[in-house]
Amino acid sequence: MRMVDIIAKKRDGRELSDDEIRWFVNGYSNEEIPDYQASAFAMALYFQGMTQKEAASLTFAMAESGDQLDLSEIEGTKVDKHSTGGVGDKTTLILGPLVAALGIPVAKMSGRGLGHTGGTIDKLESFKGFRTELKQDEFIKLVNENKIALAGQSGNLTPADKKLYALRDVTATVDSIPLIASSVMSKKIAAGADAIVLDVKMGSGAFMENLEDAKALAQAMVKIGHSLNRKTMAVISNMDQPLGRHVGNALEVKEAIETLKGQGPDDLHELSVELAAHMAAAGGKASNEKEGRKLIEEVISNGKAIEKMKLFIEKQGGDATAVDNPDLFCTAAFKKEIKAPKPGYVQSMHAAQIGRAAMVLGAGRATKDDIIDHAVGIELHKKIGDEVKKDELIATLHSNQPDTEQAEEMVKNAFSLVKAKTEKPLLIYETIYN
Amino acid sequence: MRMVDIIAKKRDGRELSDDEIRWFVNGYSNEEIPDYQASAFAMALYFQGMTQKEAASLTFAMAESGDQLDLSEIEGTKVDKHSTGGVGDKTTLILGPLVAALGIPVAKMSGRGLGHTGGTIDKLESFKGFRTELKQDEFIKLVNENKIALAGQSGNLTPADKKLYALRDVTATVDSIPLIASSVMSKKIAAGADAIVLDVKMGSGAFMENLEDAKALAQAMVKIGHSLNRKTMAVISNMDQPLGRHVGNALEVKEAIETLKGQGPDDLHELSVELAAHMAAAGGKASNEKEGRKLIEEVISNGKAIEKMKLFIEKQGGDATAVDNPDLFCTAAFKKEIKAPKPGYVQSMHAAQIGRAAMVLGAGRATKDDIIDHAVGIELHKKIGDEVKKDELIATLHSNQPDTEQAEEMVKNAFSLVKAKTEKPLLIYETIYN
Repeated sequence: MRMVDIIAKKRDGRELSDDEIRWFVNGYSNEEIPDYQASAFAMALYFQGMTQKEAASLTFAMAESGDQLDLSEIEGTKVDKHSTGGVGDKTTLILGPLVAALGIPVAKMSGRGLGHTGGTIDKLESFKGFRTELKQDEFIKLVNENKIALAGQSGNLTPADKKLYALRDVTATVDSIPLIASSVMSKKIAAGADAIVLDVKMGSGAFMENLEDAKALAQAMVKIGHSLNRKTMAVISNMDQPLGRHVGNALEVKEAIETLKGQGPDDLHELSVELAAHMAAAGGKASNEKEGRKLIEEVISNGKAIEKMKLFIEKQGGDATAVDNPDLFCTAAFKKEIKAPKPGYVQSMHAAQIGRAAMVLGAGRATKDDIIDHAVGIELHKKIGDEVKKDELIATLHSNQPDTEQAEEMVKNAFSLVKAKTEKPLLIYETIYN
Repeated sequence: MRMVDIIAKKRDGRELSDDEIRWFVNGYSNEEIPDYQASAFAMALYFQGMTQKEAASLTFAMAESGDQLDLSEIEGTKVDKHSTGGVGDKTTLILGPLVAALGIPVAKMSGRGLGHTGGTIDKLESFKGFRTELKQDEFIKLVNENKIALAGQSGNLTPADKKLYALRDVTATVDSIPLIASSVMSKKIAAGADAIVLDVKMGSGAFMENLEDAKALAQAMVKIGHSLNRKTMAVISNMDQPLGRHVGNALEVKEAIETLKGQGPDDLHELSVELAAHMAAAGGKASNEKEGRKLIEEVISNGKAIEKMKLFIEKQGGDATAVDNPDLFCTAAFKKEIKAPKPGYVQSMHAAQIGRAAMVLGAGRATKDDIIDHAVGIELHKKIGDEVKKDELIATLHSNQPDTEQAEEMVKNAFSLVKAKTEKPLLIYETIYN
């Protein structure tokens, strides 16, 4: 085979064989195929797309390009959840204890955050002592005993995907739905998932800004999952505003705890229950989402969910007493109140802008080596559809520096106030089963 | 500027500015922009094309990327001819003396051949002693004294084009009309042409296999020429069969000499006169092509053209007595006759296949370092539309090896014989002025 022929075949819109795709992934991983051919190929893919069969081949080849987790010693169906990334999205913190409380094994690999969306590990490290560097046997033992453990990504998972993603980033070939779908799914497959529940975010704080694109991405991922014999479904959810009322590591953990206790904000509660219900169905603990929803509401109200959270934190060395005493989390030295400049209704909110403002305060990383501040972040007192009076509090910045001018400006500008009454947006747009 | 933004702009079909294109060409030449970004850009260009303005900017930037010939000391309008490459195309050998005989300065830069189409320098080196390594002042002096000189490409002309072409070759981005057009025109501009006559070949032996593509390429090049204030026009000519009756270096030179004497094959004579007539008009020696044609036919019949050929060869050290005594050219040791396997008419001929057969005999180079044999080649006794009897001679191979099996097979297969009478093909399909 010659790479130039494979590029030409894709350029001309012909379907590549499984062998051709594997040959490319292996050759590119081994540095036998140079970057300049891979980037031309990625651009041809951008224009010509991929068939379902091609996308499945690419996903599997990338999953096989490095280490693959062997979770066969864990009993039960391993259900993984993946979100395409949003501001204030702390559902992973909530879903783990929720479904583990039903007996579904949660063997979660997670990463740190980069850019304006936070990483689950960063958030959990708000618990003093919490550690995520677990050896494989310790990880498996924890899951089998408690149904839940979370580890930092170790080993060399999907190196082909990492290499290709870095190349796409500098060659304007990121925005390709089959490439995004294959990238996400290859990581889930390599991490040992038997079933996958996807949360595709849509709106001003998400990668996908309209329903058509979000749906296309969701369908592409679900089809790849089915092609590779994984139960897979997707929910398309709103990201026109941050999820819940808090953005920032410790602030989000506190909100997740409230939600596990049944006292969280409506949107966060609802999305968590919805996703957990689908996970319950995928994991064989409920015959459908409706039954799953009932079981999930039960473990929230009877306290089993929050108990599972405590156990999880404790078993990984964290100070679980903070679950019942949130004052034990670190807090920021300065609070800056942002008030409405005029009366009206919140029409829209630029979610990505709020994420970036939190990053400016120190809650996120602009580059890999930045050190984050767990205490800082943003609290939103008003959301889309809410009425506000002039000078009413709309947001509070939590900062460890007295000068918050830049973040203030960003948060102020992220709110758009109008005179006419506005509607609360839909939380869940669609559910994609195939 | 960032290259990733320029790639994205082209990917999304937006027009690039002159500054952006220059910035790319300079950055790529200077190795500041890596190959992997240039190849993704080339693929985006493949899909999105270029506007006339963009193509002109690219052409000019590539022409400026290296040395540019200063031909200002040559009197008169320098008219250059360029052919997109065909099998048996020896028109450059004929056109030089034809238009020089009218007083148009011919200051030709030429190259050696690679692949199945021959290079003009290789052909001219069939004259014993002929040399093409001329210093700039010697070259200019020869043109001013005799109106004709031909030099091998020296210096560093259009390095950006060379680098980009090499990259396109391995990334399946060669077949892009604006990129081909810019590549050709940048070389002509750097080589100092005031006016350009283009011969775009179309058919089984050419890069462009259908009229639509050939016309698009011709128009793209003519428009670039006009944008850069060069008189430019194009002829689209047939390359469904080799031009004339000979393929191979010395064999082609002998045919060119016959044509300059008015005794060449019809198609070669006609195309040479047509192109020369346009050059005469472009060079200001005739008010239109019709008048140019009359002047050209005159210099053929009155012997001025063949005299100019002798002078040209002599002044560059070649043995010009071969012009009147073709036996002085080297000849091949073996001749292999190919006969018709059945009676009928020649319906088609795979011109590229015949070019490759000549290469197998040693007339061309498969790689840059191959040494060519000037004596070998192929003589065609029948062309499209000709009637043949069973066992009638259709071609003769001239070889310096007794074993010609592979080339025989290729030439035999290149001929397609049918029972029904067939038509001779058109020689010139279209003339493009803008």
